[in-house]
Amino acid sequence: MPITEFDLINRFFKQKFPTRRDVVLGIGDDAALCTAPAGMQLVMAIDTLVEGVHFPVNTKPEDIAYKALAVNLSDLAAMGATPAWMTLALTCPKVDEAWLARFSQGLLELATAAEISLIGGDTTRGSLTVTIQVTGFVELALLRSAAQVGDAIYVTGTLGDAGLGLAAIEKRITLAPEMQNYAESRLNKPTARISEGKKLTSIANAAIDVSDGLLADLNHILTASKVGASLNVESLPLSKALQSINRETALKLALTAGDDYELCFTMPANKKPPIAATRIGTIEQQLGLRCLDKDGKIFISKISGYQHFS
Amino acid sequence: MPITEFDLINRFFKQKFPTRRDVVLGIGDDAALCTAPAGMQLVMAIDTLVEGVHFPVNTKPEDIAYKALAVNLSDLAAMGATPAWMTLALTCPKVDEAWLARFSQGLLELATAAEISLIGGDTTRGSLTVTIQVTGFVELALLRSAAQVGDAIYVTGTLGDAGLGLAAIEKRITLAPEMQNYAESRLNKPTARISEGKKLTSIANAAIDVSDGLLADLNHILTASKVGASLNVESLPLSKALQSINRETALKLALTAGDDYELCFTMPANKKPPIAATRIGTIEQQLGLRCLDKDGKIFISKISGYQHFS
Repeated sequence: MPITEFDLINRFFKQKFPTRRDVVLGIGDDAALCTAPAGMQLVMAIDTLVEGVHFPVNTKPEDIAYKALAVNLSDLAAMGATPAWMTLALTCPKVDEAWLARFSQGLLELATAAEISLIGGDTTRGSLTVTIQVTGFVELALLRSAAQVGDAIYVTGTLGDAGLGLAAIEKRITLAPEMQNYAESRLNKPTARISEGKKLTSIANAAIDVSDGLLADLNHILTASKVGASLNVESLPLSKALQSINRETALKLALTAGDDYELCFTMPANKKPPIAATRIGTIEQQLGLRCLDKDGKIFISKISGYQHFS
Repeated sequence: MPITEFDLINRFFKQKFPTRRDVVLGIGDDAALCTAPAGMQLVMAIDTLVEGVHFPVNTKPEDIAYKALAVNLSDLAAMGATPAWMTLALTCPKVDEAWLARFSQGLLELATAAEISLIGGDTTRGSLTVTIQVTGFVELALLRSAAQVGDAIYVTGTLGDAGLGLAAIEKRITLAPEMQNYAESRLNKPTARISEGKKLTSIANAAIDVSDGLLADLNHILTASKVGASLNVESLPLSKALQSINRETALKLALTAGDDYELCFTMPANKKPPIAATRIGTIEQQLGLRCLDKDGKIFISKISGYQHFS
């Protein structure tokens, strides 16, 4: 007898996930019921991963699930929000119980770490597509639109690693095994900077997560804030793996490769960030984004970030 | 120059949609910001439509969008909730501006009627898949689990029309042109019974929307409520279109075809429903679902509802 949609949901997604006291009714009715905390704003984001577009074919099911949640949590992190609830829309070509068990395990791992409840979902048949919607809370959100002239620009962690991992998987770049493992893990299991985002709400003026590449994402801050910036490419934080390859390629990855999910934020230059982060530039009145080398010369005038559909 | 993801979002989805005072920040940042009303529960549902699975290939783009929202609104209706906000994850194979313009028009039409804001989204490349997540509010939700022995069972509208429309499109059944138009419109532009659901919160004990077929969905109420029921198949409300075909086929469609999005609800038998609805049966202590013909004989003991993945 074939497994039904309802068995699927019960078997793989109803059990084990964190339960929160603000979830009145989770999976199992027409919709979920939750109570929002007084005095907080709700923060909502939705992101889809498509096989072959957002992750390579043959990516481990647990990594697909982990990443699908991580990219959404990263959007909450960029607003300084605390995650609370998620809904999952999973489209897959067939019922593969071993695959589903691993998928739900990957989702559970990150959901438990992030203390986020799975409150609802839909499972459908089709090409492998994973959509997660997350809701969180924040008292005062970090926006893209509030960067101030004179602000220092920072990023968390290191940039370009996910792009390096993809290049290694696609055999465009050859890496030492331990470097390849590191870069692939940055691609497949990105870290959403939730705790960092929360600490930034009291001091940062603007923030975004680096999903499409630093230049593209920083440009969103500049456009929304109606300011410009200069970046010092020598100061870009590069991992050992990225330092192990040709420097020009490394800088191009750090500037334009997506999928790192680090936070890029701006804050008053005379203050110290409350989290580990690297200063990479300055917000300026002159519109546009100028990438300068160590001598202050223009390194590149424009490199496009990753664009779906382009 | 190719259109970018960001242009797409701006051009087709940022404009014109209803704006609500409780939306602090809509499309354009990492996440949306909203404020929930005090003293209400949040009600959340997510549903995906896949081309070729949930709607025929070549369905009009405006109908796909309309239906993707309608099926979600129907979940809110079944809880007695008032819709407020939605997020959209649209995966499509290419940028077809004429298609997108019609899709956004269909979404806008129903969003405007339902007074629901589009607060966020994600557009990706892949097989045509539409996921919408809706959030609404309710003071006291209608659940599947609260049906009482002795309750009368009702449905709104008529049943089996969407299944008839699909059979006509697939040329399994031949209909007169005006009957075919009616049945196709029931399949492609279902009505979410929002206002009916809201009126039921004060009187109904249990409710569900008929998405998988009456038997399957009523069974969810029975299982969740730990009760049984008898249905009188002679009393099933059938449209003129369904009455125009072979009676046995008509009853089978009314009992098992999905996609009608009518409400099935139970309430005390000695009271009168506050909305137009047809009484079709009674909740009983004896577990299981018994379908009786006009002489009270067993019509069928079990017909499965539509199951994805089966």
